[in-house]
Amino acid sequence: MKVSVLFSGGKDSSMAAILLEPFFEVELVTCNFSLLSTDEIAAEVASRIGLPHRILNMDSDILENAYEMIIRDGFPKNAINYIHQKTVESLALEDGVKFIADGTRRDDRVPVLTASQIQSIEDRFYVNYLCPLRGYGRTAVNQLVKTHLIIQEALSDDISKADYEAELRELIKLRHGIDIIEKLFPPHVQSKVIERIK
Amino acid sequence: MKVSVLFSGGKDSSMAAILLEPFFEVELVTCNFSLLSTDEIAAEVASRIGLPHRILNMDSDILENAYEMIIRDGFPKNAINYIHQKTVESLALEDGVKFIADGTRRDDRVPVLTASQIQSIEDRFYVNYLCPLRGYGRTAVNQLVKTHLIIQEALSDDISKADYEAELRELIKLRHGIDIIEKLFPPHVQSKVIERIK
Repeated sequence: MKVSVLFSGGKDSSMAAILLEPFFEVELVTCNFSLLSTDEIAAEVASRIGLPHRILNMDSDILENAYEMIIRDGFPKNAINYIHQKTVESLALEDGVKFIADGTRRDDRVPVLTASQIQSIEDRFYVNYLCPLRGYGRTAVNQLVKTHLIIQEALSDDISKADYEAELRELIKLRHGIDIIEKLFPPHVQSKVIERIK
Repeated sequence: MKVSVLFSGGKDSSMAAILLEPFFEVELVTCNFSLLSTDEIAAEVASRIGLPHRILNMDSDILENAYEMIIRDGFPKNAINYIHQKTVESLALEDGVKFIADGTRRDDRVPVLTASQIQSIEDRFYVNYLCPLRGYGRTAVNQLVKTHLIIQEALSDDISKADYEAELRELIKLRHGIDIIEKLFPPHVQSKVIERIK
């Protein structure tokens, strides 16, 4: 059974993939809007983890809609969740994709699909949506990560990652300059995987 | 890292244990109130799965309280959740128990601890509570089960399992006869693991 794991290069999506690895044929998938080379960043991390990786090229209209949402809202939650949902749906449309997974933890708030969004995706696209870390709290995930991964942690500004936020931030920066970024995105620590502990 | 998996001999707790096995030192734990030999039933299934197993002897007051709840309520939900919570707490009190897991799926309703119950247990007892199947829907769990386990499925009356319900049903039967059982417990299909596919 093949599973496509939405992959940002961070600790959660990496750990989700590692938990699935003994039971599925895992492929890592990173969405890209052709604005930043997040594809290369993710491919590099994937090769360090030792799992196959591919890019999902996304329609720039989706990033445009997300941009409008965050400018209208003044905070990123809805925009990020929207990109997440559209990415899952794009993946679910592909032939041969039957299991889609992500790195959502028990205490995550964004990006998180609601129970009815998940049910709707499973019913409309005949796929299974898996969140291997959904039953793990932050401490338990960190313990697993410590055993399996060497990571770098830093504020979002200082880390080059391939998450949904990266290209959205870039688009905003191009249109409004850098100062608006810290108004829209509250500072938060992000992680990037450096190496897998074998 | 050792994890203690609450184990009924059914497909969900077995599959949860199998998902954890590559990452933790797994022990299966079955609670018993000395009313039925659910300990032997569980030990037999555990040996077929090939994982170490032990019994958690529970205070009969807890079964008594659960009995009062179900008689008062007329349905089993609160009684079963109560036994589950008390079992997790008993286990969490033990020295050396740092990770406790169960077989809760995404769409399970009973027994399920709420987010605040889980948080409270983690904070009071310094343990991590894991639900490896929490991010998996019914179909996905069934697919995994089909790959890893041979199971028997039947209505609760016709299956000898080591779940919380078994001894509660027995106590009610001893005190009120068998007819009340089907009034209190809606008929539902249960599973028991017969063999592990290696």
